[in-house]
Amino acid sequence: MCSPTTTTENNNDHLVQSSDPNHPANLIPALCAKFWTLGWVTGTGGGASIRSDDLVYLAPSGVQKELMKPDDIYVLSLAAQTQSLDKRQRVYLRSPANYKPSQCTPLFLAAFTKRNAGCCIHTHSHWAVLVTLILETQGAGKDKEFMINNIEQIKGFGKGFGKSGNLGYHDTLKIPVIENTAHEEDLTEFLEEAMDKYPDTYAVLVRRHGVYVWGENVHKAKTMCESLDYLFQLAVEMKQLGLPWVTDIEPTVPTRK
Amino acid sequence: MCSPTTTTENNNDHLVQSSDPNHPANLIPALCAKFWTLGWVTGTGGGASIRSDDLVYLAPSGVQKELMKPDDIYVLSLAAQTQSLDKRQRVYLRSPANYKPSQCTPLFLAAFTKRNAGCCIHTHSHWAVLVTLILETQGAGKDKEFMINNIEQIKGFGKGFGKSGNLGYHDTLKIPVIENTAHEEDLTEFLEEAMDKYPDTYAVLVRRHGVYVWGENVHKAKTMCESLDYLFQLAVEMKQLGLPWVTDIEPTVPTRK
Amino acid sequence: MCSPTTTTENNNDHLVQSSDPNHPANLIPALCAKFWTLGWVTGTGGGASIRSDDLVYLAPSGVQKELMKPDDIYVLSLAAQTQSLDKRQRVYLRSPANYKPSQCTPLFLAAFTKRNAGCCIHTHSHWAVLVTLILETQGAGKDKEFMINNIEQIKGFGKGFGKSGNLGYHDTLKIPVIENTAHEEDLTEFLEEAMDKYPDTYAVLVRRHGVYVWGENVHKAKTMCESLDYLFQLAVEMKQLGLPWVTDIEPTVPTRK
Amino acid sequence: MCSPTTTTENNNDHLVQSSDPNHPANLIPALCAKFWTLGWVTGTGGGASIRSDDLVYLAPSGVQKELMKPDDIYVLSLAAQTQSLDKRQRVYLRSPANYKPSQCTPLFLAAFTKRNAGCCIHTHSHWAVLVTLILETQGAGKDKEFMINNIEQIKGFGKGFGKSGNLGYHDTLKIPVIENTAHEEDLTEFLEEAMDKYPDTYAVLVRRHGVYVWGENVHKAKTMCESLDYLFQLAVEMKQLGLPWVTDIEPTVPTRK
Repeated sequence: MCSPTTTTENNNDHLVQSSDPNHPANLIPALCAKFWTLGWVTGTGGGASIRSDDLVYLAPSGVQKELMKPDDIYVLSLAAQTQSLDKRQRVYLRSPANYKPSQCTPLFLAAFTKRNAGCCIHTHSHWAVLVTLILETQGAGKDKEFMINNIEQIKGFGKGFGKSGNLGYHDTLKIPVIENTAHEEDLTEFLEEAMDKYPDTYAVLVRRHGVYVWGENVHKAKTMCESLDYLFQLAVEMKQLGLPWVTDIEPTVPTRK
Repeated sequence: MCSPTTTTENNNDHLVQSSDPNHPANLIPALCAKFWTLGWVTGTGGGASIRSDDLVYLAPSGVQKELMKPDDIYVLSLAAQTQSLDKRQRVYLRSPANYKPSQCTPLFLAAFTKRNAGCCIHTHSHWAVLVTLILETQGAGKDKEFMINNIEQIKGFGKGFGKSGNLGYHDTLKIPVIENTAHEEDLTEFLEEAMDKYPDTYAVLVRRHGVYVWGENVHKAKTMCESLDYLFQLAVEMKQLGLPWVTDIEPTVPTRK
Repeated sequence: MCSPTTTTENNNDHLVQSSDPNHPANLIPALCAKFWTLGWVTGTGGGASIRSDDLVYLAPSGVQKELMKPDDIYVLSLAAQTQSLDKRQRVYLRSPANYKPSQCTPLFLAAFTKRNAGCCIHTHSHWAVLVTLILETQGAGKDKEFMINNIEQIKGFGKGFGKSGNLGYHDTLKIPVIENTAHEEDLTEFLEEAMDKYPDTYAVLVRRHGVYVWGENVHKAKTMCESLDYLFQLAVEMKQLGLPWVTDIEPTVPTRK
Repeated sequence: MCSPTTTTENNNDHLVQSSDPNHPANLIPALCAKFWTLGWVTGTGGGASIRSDDLVYLAPSGVQKELMKPDDIYVLSLAAQTQSLDKRQRVYLRSPANYKPSQCTPLFLAAFTKRNAGCCIHTHSHWAVLVTLILETQGAGKDKEFMINNIEQIKGFGKGFGKSGNLGYHDTLKIPVIENTAHEEDLTEFLEEAMDKYPDTYAVLVRRHGVYVWGENVHKAKTMCESLDYLFQLAVEMKQLGLPWVTDIEPTVPTRK
């Protein structure tokens, strides 16, 4: 909400006008409307961004996510951002008339720049928040990492950036947790730190706040975000039933081939 | 349900006829249908009202909220109400044919009169009811105020009437709780008392009943109501997991700028 | 599923053909589709019936409730049933081609005959089932009646058959519980017994099965069924939080008039 | 995801092109979209297959289930599979352009071959997963079978393959649980073993993974899958309330006939 907007003289409205439902300017509103029904972007919280080559499409700040329109979308050049000396003075190729840029912008850009992601989703899912609250009670040293294994849905995650194939059923999915900051854009350095420390992760939990999830493209970011929310919900329900998140299970091996 | 209706000779049906989806007479039914899917206005409970300058648009009593139509809407003049000697003898500029005015009317008017609100929403959300029940068990002196802090979604609330900007992550959101009365309109004086005692609040919880939430306009009332319901749900789940609503957390400060 | 169907030579298809969305043959499928999304009629369970003067419209047995069509509806004459010597040999004015009558039929007829109801809804809502299971643990003498008071949503219920007005906030809503039988139609005599014992009730819980709710018309049956499901859900959540369903609360009285 | 695909020269696209909404190529996407809203096929998990005589229609691997189109569907000949010497070298009559076959394929085929099923559904419903986790804590010998009785919804299940009629209210529904394997297709032999050991079951739970449910046709598979998910949810909630899944209840017998 704080980043000042500098609009170019030519507002480049053509960048958000397309009859293709898979064009980023159409896809972001469609995804956000779906996420609203899932409780991920309640009350203008959360958001999503798509990168197509050098162009980055972003939802604005403070919009009702289920009512967003293509005309509400910001567009910027990724290359131009990384060359800018003052990151707070961001230049947009196209800006909507009545909005301010989202404070999530630098966090989305981190996923695009450091991981070459094609899509990044930020949810306030209360399952994500509850997982970080449960971890918080486990004390220093045990509160910075969500771990779960031996659940089929874990196979929904890729092995990591630049690696091929997905995690296996017995693999332990590890999602780092960073502490929340008073200003959302101040999360950026801690998100980048977590990316450096966990080079294979596709998601970072933010304590008492939510989760950032990215992927090579919209399909991968969205399905990993769904799988993760499924696992967070399961983890909270397991906690309520007194069941551990990480177990040691002997693999079941087929006898015939 | 009890307030007698006095209809004018000219029923002013044009006041609820518009092709603009954002006209209050179209927006109230659309909002109420959405709220029904969220479980906020189950079984004709709850409702919503919009003020546009001096005109106040109100849902009627006892209507199925997901089936409401523009033709079901009451309209009254706010100025005329405040001049009326007998508040129970309310004059409507426009009345629907087969309904009675809602008992919520004086409570909505309180938000419009005392806070210059543009929209007021009343839900029976069971998360709101459960929060008031949990507070009730904490004994006299601790049962009249819902408090939560250090949750990102708190940033969804404005700082207060006439103040600019929103609450911060570390701020404590305080929502007063008033006791329910046998007749809904009798809540009005207690709602007004709570508004006086909590000049910055945008919501008042009603014990074993639900919540009233208002805002400068529809956007703000609706998104604050969503954020509040999110926080009530989170609070109930935190209670089930034995987690406190208010904590003392050291701010995380960015190291680079 | 057992009652043999006797179709008349003239199948009277006109009885289920209307362009009016509020015609019972159109309304039953629309209601059932809505109830499916609420989890009330999962896996062909539950159902709904509407009476219009002497004509009773019924959903068939074993149909997917969210896919039902007007052409699937049975119609019978209420007067003809009460004159029939053999209740198992029911005569339908109109029958669908590929279905069997619902075992719920005699239970719906009981509400129409004994209470002059215009609509009766039967749900398998798991909140209703859980309430009967919780009551079951309270031992003989305490397990046959669901009671809750001092919750605003109680005002959604009428005072009783032939009485005007609704229950008040402080009133105790009492819903009798009958034991389930192996065959659904055998429930009829116990449902009728409960109606005799609780002349003011608009609903009867069936242990480990669900609930029957009726009303003077579709609006009243549907909104009371919603309010009841809301209260059942609240009751289960209150139980999980250790909160009592019935309390002694001093009324809050307004000081000004 | 591993099975290599061999496409025929003629891709037989006509097999998935029909204007009939009940054609399997149209029905599978419609069902999967519905299942996505139920949380059964989150993040590309789960799926569904329909058999029409010798033709088997299958969803591909890794597709977003709520976005699937008829053009995404695989078709194969059931007879051709059972004659094939190398089951891993499966021949498809029709393959979509950009997908890989689902690892669920051999499990769906088991239901079609061993049970003459017309439809098989695989969900990752977290209620199913939680039930297997709860059973796991009950120790060896008690962890391989989900049992529940005296719940009305049990009547939604058929008595078993080749038997007529449905289970009764007092019958105990038994669903075997098999251990999950690292590769989904390796589940096949254990699924077939469970089918041999439980000849009357229409479903097999997979620990920490989900459930496979089948039926004579789409209607029966879908409604039994719904009823089962209802029972799994109820079982988890009963566990949270300390209520047993299996009870000894004296039948209630009608006194008049």
